[in-house]
Amino acid sequence: MAAPDARRELDTTSIPGYVIFPEQNDIDLRAGPKLRSQTHPLDQLSLKEIAVTAKLIREYANPQQLKFNCISLREPKKNEYAAFRSRTGPRPDRRALAIVLEQGASSVAEVVVNLTQLLVEDWKPVSDVAPTLTLEDLDIMERIARTDPRVIEVCAEIGITDMSKVYIDAWAIGVDHRWGFERRLQQGLAYYRTSEFDNQYAHPLDFSVIADTEAEEVLSVDVRRVNGERTQVPLVEHNYLPEFIADGYQHHRLKPIEITQPEGVSFQMNGNEIHWANYKMHIGFNYREGIVLSDVRIQDPYENRERTLFNRISVVEMVVPYGNPDPPHHKKHAFDVGEYGTGLMTNSLKLGCDCKGAIHYLDGIVSTSKGQAAIIPNAICIHEEDNGILYKHTDFRDANVISARDRKLIISQIITAANYEYGFYHIFTLDGTYKLEIKLTGMLNTYCLHPSETAAPYGTEVAPGIDAHNHQHIFSLRIDPEIDGPDNSIVQSDAVPSEAPVGSPGNLYGNGFYCKKTLLRTSKEAAVDYCHETQRAWDIINPNKIHESCKKPIGYKMINSSCPPLLAKPGSIVHKRAAFARKTLWVVPYKDYELFPAGDYVCQSNGEENHPHNGTVLDWSNRDEPIENTDIVCYLQFGLTHFPRCEDFPIMPAEPVGVMIRASNFFQKNPALWVPPSQISKDLSSRNAFMPGGCCEGKKAVTARL
Amino acid sequence: MAAPDARRELDTTSIPGYVIFPEQNDIDLRAGPKLRSQTHPLDQLSLKEIAVTAKLIREYANPQQLKFNCISLREPKKNEYAAFRSRTGPRPDRRALAIVLEQGASSVAEVVVNLTQLLVEDWKPVSDVAPTLTLEDLDIMERIARTDPRVIEVCAEIGITDMSKVYIDAWAIGVDHRWGFERRLQQGLAYYRTSEFDNQYAHPLDFSVIADTEAEEVLSVDVRRVNGERTQVPLVEHNYLPEFIADGYQHHRLKPIEITQPEGVSFQMNGNEIHWANYKMHIGFNYREGIVLSDVRIQDPYENRERTLFNRISVVEMVVPYGNPDPPHHKKHAFDVGEYGTGLMTNSLKLGCDCKGAIHYLDGIVSTSKGQAAIIPNAICIHEEDNGILYKHTDFRDANVISARDRKLIISQIITAANYEYGFYHIFTLDGTYKLEIKLTGMLNTYCLHPSETAAPYGTEVAPGIDAHNHQHIFSLRIDPEIDGPDNSIVQSDAVPSEAPVGSPGNLYGNGFYCKKTLLRTSKEAAVDYCHETQRAWDIINPNKIHESCKKPIGYKMINSSCPPLLAKPGSIVHKRAAFARKTLWVVPYKDYELFPAGDYVCQSNGEENHPHNGTVLDWSNRDEPIENTDIVCYLQFGLTHFPRCEDFPIMPAEPVGVMIRASNFFQKNPALWVPPSQISKDLSSRNAFMPGGCCEGKKAVTARL
Repeated sequence: MAAPDARRELDTTSIPGYVIFPEQNDIDLRAGPKLRSQTHPLDQLSLKEIAVTAKLIREYANPQQLKFNCISLREPKKNEYAAFRSRTGPRPDRRALAIVLEQGASSVAEVVVNLTQLLVEDWKPVSDVAPTLTLEDLDIMERIARTDPRVIEVCAEIGITDMSKVYIDAWAIGVDHRWGFERRLQQGLAYYRTSEFDNQYAHPLDFSVIADTEAEEVLSVDVRRVNGERTQVPLVEHNYLPEFIADGYQHHRLKPIEITQPEGVSFQMNGNEIHWANYKMHIGFNYREGIVLSDVRIQDPYENRERTLFNRISVVEMVVPYGNPDPPHHKKHAFDVGEYGTGLMTNSLKLGCDCKGAIHYLDGIVSTSKGQAAIIPNAICIHEEDNGILYKHTDFRDANVISARDRKLIISQIITAANYEYGFYHIFTLDGTYKLEIKLTGMLNTYCLHPSETAAPYGTEVAPGIDAHNHQHIFSLRIDPEIDGPDNSIVQSDAVPSEAPVGSPGNLYGNGFYCKKTLLRTSKEAAVDYCHETQRAWDIINPNKIHESCKKPIGYKMINSSCPPLLAKPGSIVHKRAAFARKTLWVVPYKDYELFPAGDYVCQSNGEENHPHNGTVLDWSNRDEPIENTDIVCYLQFGLTHFPRCEDFPIMPAEPVGVMIRASNFFQKNPALWVPPSQISKDLSSRNAFMPGGCCEGKKAVTARL
Repeated sequence: MAAPDARRELDTTSIPGYVIFPEQNDIDLRAGPKLRSQTHPLDQLSLKEIAVTAKLIREYANPQQLKFNCISLREPKKNEYAAFRSRTGPRPDRRALAIVLEQGASSVAEVVVNLTQLLVEDWKPVSDVAPTLTLEDLDIMERIARTDPRVIEVCAEIGITDMSKVYIDAWAIGVDHRWGFERRLQQGLAYYRTSEFDNQYAHPLDFSVIADTEAEEVLSVDVRRVNGERTQVPLVEHNYLPEFIADGYQHHRLKPIEITQPEGVSFQMNGNEIHWANYKMHIGFNYREGIVLSDVRIQDPYENRERTLFNRISVVEMVVPYGNPDPPHHKKHAFDVGEYGTGLMTNSLKLGCDCKGAIHYLDGIVSTSKGQAAIIPNAICIHEEDNGILYKHTDFRDANVISARDRKLIISQIITAANYEYGFYHIFTLDGTYKLEIKLTGMLNTYCLHPSETAAPYGTEVAPGIDAHNHQHIFSLRIDPEIDGPDNSIVQSDAVPSEAPVGSPGNLYGNGFYCKKTLLRTSKEAAVDYCHETQRAWDIINPNKIHESCKKPIGYKMINSSCPPLLAKPGSIVHKRAAFARKTLWVVPYKDYELFPAGDYVCQSNGEENHPHNGTVLDWSNRDEPIENTDIVCYLQFGLTHFPRCEDFPIMPAEPVGVMIRASNFFQKNPALWVPPSQISKDLSSRNAFMPGGCCEGKKAVTARL
């Protein structure tokens, strides 16, 4: 751990939000044994492990000069880890996966380094792929665009001569048929600011810049002309920062709400393992997925044993396809996990807070292009929240009442993806439920309207001359279940009326309905959509364990009604690239290192099926392998369709969307009966059974008038 | 207002949870002028107003002996109230609506009393209807069943001789063709308790009791025999009260969370009007709907004027159809609003709390069968909650950040409907959103399984021998909108791909999609269903006000994807009775006193269309009247389908379901920019702009290891 004093001497400015540690070319590899410490096998790489990885790779590649795209934990294979965990096998070797580029070019190699044995185990060149764009990569675009003569010229044509007021948001290219994988491409979306903190999204410019950011070369400046004309910059300011709101804040109106835990939090950390209520799990983090929850298990209060729930849960992809078909907007379909890395874009929460209460933070560790380790301080927030009523019942005969309060454990991170912000909240509650909630906020992507244009139907004119385009956000939650054991199956459940006609003996009064269960037997069968009419859900069952009471296999149910169909048409480039978003659920057999449903390499991908080293969930599903009573993985898509409204400008009120996985005949009964009630009536036990802090002070206003 | 001391002398036992005031036959009607005070026209009737109403009706009916079914505010007609509110008309007379029964019979009359003029204005006999079952009515069933010889006999047959251990939950009849409106019917569902606080739902009995509770006469004891055999009582106990959990509570595991507002709450009450943030509204309450929100308006921070949102919002109906087609379960389709009264069943929160933080309570006032007034102390809970991030944005260039916190105002009540509990949470947030969340908890309705039976497919065996049947909960939220003026329209919005083929000039890359808008012109056109595939939503627009930026009519959007189709088949009795539940949305023109979509009289209703004095929303919709740019009312249905799981037993973890109505191009821009941020980075203004209490104390665990 770096002492705070040590940090001050470090480079903290070159990547905002990162604390970068210097290159360690003088690192002593003989210090190796220290790496074989009692580190949890799923812990993210340490600063030193990153430095050692970089050094080993540099030595291996010498004299070739490399640019490090990522250096990240290569998790042990599942069976190795399982053996270690069950104490039937040795501690797995620590390994790093690095993706490297030849400096200044676009050729890519995947390198596996064994950190226990201090050697490069594998060096695999991969062709026709483009790896994640790091913050450093994205930083290049604005710099080179501002000084490019063509950019200067197209700015001058609309009256902009001070290039320091031109801002370029760098995006992955989406699609551009002019170049292929010989170039590492970005598109730059152009904006203007009237002053340093002015909101640039109020001043979108009518051109975009295409660059090869490895070569640091602007390839094209694409100016959109309408009837041959340029569109003038909308110059009216629309701001939201304190400089501009000034006396507009109404401090008196909202009185403070203080949330405290005077006796401390209810969870214990053991390294990166957390124990809260009946849950235990490991919290990991990497540059691509951000938070990874592993080994999620729960102490069953009735069977008096620990039961496994999930091997691994993480958000492995998302896509934001925009719905305006006019160039250049067809290129906007951001894959914010695969193209940029959820981990890399994670906000450091060190400057203040984004949650209330007693907060516990974990740092994220990532790497730089030079192979340096970098800390994102306070990348992960862990806290508890009151969650309202857990259960309540009153006996109407005598008003005897019992009421208990629920609690949330929330493990969260917030990312900034250029204009947008996403908050990822992994939530566990006392009834055995896991919920992923994502909150969307930040800034709309905007474009300027030519006077002859209307925003409709493909966007909303959120302020005069400013068009915010229709878009969708479709996330992919990867669930590697282990519902009370390694072998699980998926059963689709549909609420349907009884097939028996009204008046027939089986349905005399016509009220019969039931839950139709369909076992999904193969990965092709398990590429399925939500159905509103039947309130479709999916049980992850363990067919080897039958519930004693209900005589059904024990299970956990995936509930996801927030899954908009992909609106880009079949045949469209988005439909190809984001094949994962075509279905609500995919289920495939588990395979080591098969993680990312839009491919390991999403940048510049074209959605080609059966790519030799860039498989997608569509390919995996098409293998049509059995998924019954075996080790399976689920990809659950969810999100929303966003038709911008004027209220989303100049900054969007947070909008939540989520999915839930909850016990479904997994426990013998309500698993939260151990939670002390916050309220019982006087007629019940006088035992001091109340939940601590469970009761509030009520202030009463009797309004009855006699 | 009743002083606490005065209350102690009152009858607080005869209806649990109610504080009953004595009959006031000696009331001095000359005290009338006091009634014409500055009472808000929408305030619930006062204790005195109820007493006066009862006295006037008794005098009017003399010598006929009456049983009062309800005495409740008759709200002023809309145009009268609007005129008063806009100071263009006089204060409306205070009026009461009473529904009365001839003592011991089932003939019904609706009586309107003018409390300003102290006279009975209208006395209307209504035939072929059965009014709401009050708690007093429901109380009769258990009493008469326990002493009925036939009940005693059927209990003895399965070995039960101590009738004090037999408990009967009284339900509305649902359907029973053996009797009509000449009888006021209830069905009693039978359970057994091994001891006073034992959970009866673990011991369901195999018979039900039909009674005329006006005549206090058991009409039938319906015993279910399977292959000619009775089903033995399942005697295993399944308990959840402290007596039984005893040392099972794990106090150490959850540390207290304290939520306080040291400077007090942020809302002000003026009588029953509340002012919070930019909102103002009136909080009403009645025996049937419980909470009624009226005159909901918001101060527009940009237009600097108060703008109306909703005339009136309330939950006006719900139905819980059970899906087991075997008799007697086909009779279980509870309409908990219309058959029992949400107000009447409201929990008194005086014994403790169901929310955390600084709570403000309002009492509910209802009436008894004798015409007494009764208070439900602390029937309505008003409190604020932190609501996480309101908005956040970080500039990736320099990590400059702004973040503000959202806040909820929550106006809530909790009801006990025999076995089930429902919490109703009316929620307003700072971005101008209204959300209704309902939390379902309490006890599953259970039935005993004969050894030859299985629970599947129509139920779940939640514990050995105990069957919990499939059921749905479908709620109806009545929204009487006044989106910036009295005349509104409804536009259906559907997210659809561009019609242009991929590759055609209008959709070259195939990514085009837009929001298809369909104006619903008549009430028949506006009987519509949710569509998942198009992420359907409905805008309540004011076609007379065009948004300056987006050039569309201003509006509020109804978002409701939690609307299960009614699974009872067409032709079934539930399908007839709960016609309101056939559609996600109904929109009809406003008519005074047209409130209840399953009819004013739901008990024993048969779903007859065009009933002379029991119209339903289906009838109103079938009138096919114009709903364009006029005063309209929306009925929005939502809920869930519940296939019980073992975790729902013996007491259900709370499950939330809700709908949302939020600004959609109503405000010029984000309406919450006045909220002081909780976090700004150091590079931004040093002005002390922080939201009070917005920042947390972080406790840090650096896990990076060098």
